[in-house]
Amino acid sequence: MTLIDDKSINTTPISSLGEFGLIERLTKDFKCENKSTIKGIGDDCAVFKGAKNYKLLSTDMLVEGVHFDLSYTPLKHLGFKAVAVNVSDICAMNGRTSQLTISIAVSNRFSVEALDELYSGIKLACKEYSIDLVGGDTTSSLSGLVISVSVLGEVDPKKITYRDGAKVNDLLVVTGDLGAAYFGLQLLKREKEIFKENPNVQPDLSGHDYALNRQLKPEAPVKYLKILEELSITPTSMIDISDGLSSEALHISKASNVGVSLQENKIPIDYTIMNLASEFNLNPIAYALSGGEDYELLFSINQKDYDKLKKDPDFTIVGYVTDISVGNNFIATDGSIHPLTAQGWDGMKEQ
Amino acid sequence: MTLIDDKSINTTPISSLGEFGLIERLTKDFKCENKSTIKGIGDDCAVFKGAKNYKLLSTDMLVEGVHFDLSYTPLKHLGFKAVAVNVSDICAMNGRTSQLTISIAVSNRFSVEALDELYSGIKLACKEYSIDLVGGDTTSSLSGLVISVSVLGEVDPKKITYRDGAKVNDLLVVTGDLGAAYFGLQLLKREKEIFKENPNVQPDLSGHDYALNRQLKPEAPVKYLKILEELSITPTSMIDISDGLSSEALHISKASNVGVSLQENKIPIDYTIMNLASEFNLNPIAYALSGGEDYELLFSINQKDYDKLKKDPDFTIVGYVTDISVGNNFIATDGSIHPLTAQGWDGMKEQ
Repeated sequence: MTLIDDKSINTTPISSLGEFGLIERLTKDFKCENKSTIKGIGDDCAVFKGAKNYKLLSTDMLVEGVHFDLSYTPLKHLGFKAVAVNVSDICAMNGRTSQLTISIAVSNRFSVEALDELYSGIKLACKEYSIDLVGGDTTSSLSGLVISVSVLGEVDPKKITYRDGAKVNDLLVVTGDLGAAYFGLQLLKREKEIFKENPNVQPDLSGHDYALNRQLKPEAPVKYLKILEELSITPTSMIDISDGLSSEALHISKASNVGVSLQENKIPIDYTIMNLASEFNLNPIAYALSGGEDYELLFSINQKDYDKLKKDPDFTIVGYVTDISVGNNFIATDGSIHPLTAQGWDGMKEQ
Repeated sequence: MTLIDDKSINTTPISSLGEFGLIERLTKDFKCENKSTIKGIGDDCAVFKGAKNYKLLSTDMLVEGVHFDLSYTPLKHLGFKAVAVNVSDICAMNGRTSQLTISIAVSNRFSVEALDELYSGIKLACKEYSIDLVGGDTTSSLSGLVISVSVLGEVDPKKITYRDGAKVNDLLVVTGDLGAAYFGLQLLKREKEIFKENPNVQPDLSGHDYALNRQLKPEAPVKYLKILEELSITPTSMIDISDGLSSEALHISKASNVGVSLQENKIPIDYTIMNLASEFNLNPIAYALSGGEDYELLFSINQKDYDKLKKDPDFTIVGYVTDISVGNNFIATDGSIHPLTAQGWDGMKEQ
């Protein structure tokens, strides 16, 4: 229909640019001119001047069928997760989340009781992380559920951690362990397929609580910030691990203008996930590098802080920062060196 | 499918509560406990402590097929409108917008060039209102386009205008004129139907620029705040007119615990809209009261400020505030008094 002349004729597919390429293209001409804006696009949060502290703002959109499948995602867990993944972005700036808005678009196949369940999860997360729900929008959708969350937080200007502060010889540290959320998702998908083929077969999810919880009810990495504060460590750079360790390490590399090297034998993977990977006949390291949805933190520290955290089992040193000329590398257990890519590392291609 | 026990069995349809009833139900158990939260849910924006000023936050979600129809909405205009309607919420608090995040979910029928068009409109609005785009999210959608916008603004604590400050004997004032956006939409819908029936007929939209612009490219009511400041008027309460004058007047009534009376013969309607209403055989007053999407401001002022603005054609006094016992009334030109309802007034039912 051409009621109004529309120049937007279909030519370049979005997929040809990828998410980060698309964002870069769409936002490259925007400049920040307000004095209160300290940091715009390009980190986990935008940063503004506040009273004493800096204010942080981040936003995320979750789309049914893209980010979640309601055939195996309880709505209460989904509500919790929608909040937690946003809190994770505030954590990545070394900040504390204070307020939240939730907008939802829902089709008429959802009942009021279904939304009650969703909001009970949101409420649980608000309570756990001491966040005030202060606004939002509720509207219709023609198909499925869309959830958009915005979070506000704050951080001491002396303690804020951007992606761009990593220095040569810093150590790279991750919290917790990696890959579990990915394998949790594979389990749920497998059981869904079995169920579709034969609805009389009961799903077998027993013994996999850890992987399932990491997928369905991830926690924001708030506790690690507390430990870092107690240890008097301020990371030189930080990012949350939502797309996989290698993708995040590359973000730090690009923003900080340094090289990053990750060591295969250091990457922390829970033993139940090792077993599960072997059950799926998949390389656990590849999915620790690229599986996504871990919501752990990747950060860099000055070597002088090494002694403070080396004995803490919450943290694992997974690599180090080099001069940019060294490039971004994955050092395999056998000592061979591979270029690190956003898809994990070359080993992924062998899967 | 029952991989996980889901308590959300479909019982109460969402439509049985309505938007405001649903929001009230979903959010009633949430309490604000952070010291920095000054106002949570229940006004045009959430309000926080800032450095000197208060910070404002508002969010809105626009869904294809619900809020816009791309067969007659140019993407550039849509981008502009998505920003303007959020700026309008900041205006309703007597604030100035400073930052913005945009999240979009798009299906693969959209090209990169189509998104360029959308963002060119967003950019135009950011320039016009001096706003920094500071973040967002870009994701896939299985069907259509969803746009979620969050805006941050600020306001002098002495000048902030909530919905709850209207006092008995205050005057009710609207900016600009009402109903045009609704009739612009009717025009576009009519031409779409004609086009569907016979694609060879050229759409006839000539002579209707005002109504079409008000629908497709609404301006945020920023200029009126400047005039109010020059006139040294701080409204006692304020709200933006997105759902229609009567719905907004009832929000002020409820929040301020007062009655509101609107006078039919005072409601400002552009003469081109009077003509258009007559062409559609519709009562223009009914749609000025309930058409929606005007993005004008409704505010209350103390009578002492009457002389300051009575000669300014930007403002029209449309009614007054009474004791709550008087109720909410629509006073027709013939002097008859009708209960004011969110659907307009009883006269609507005769349409």
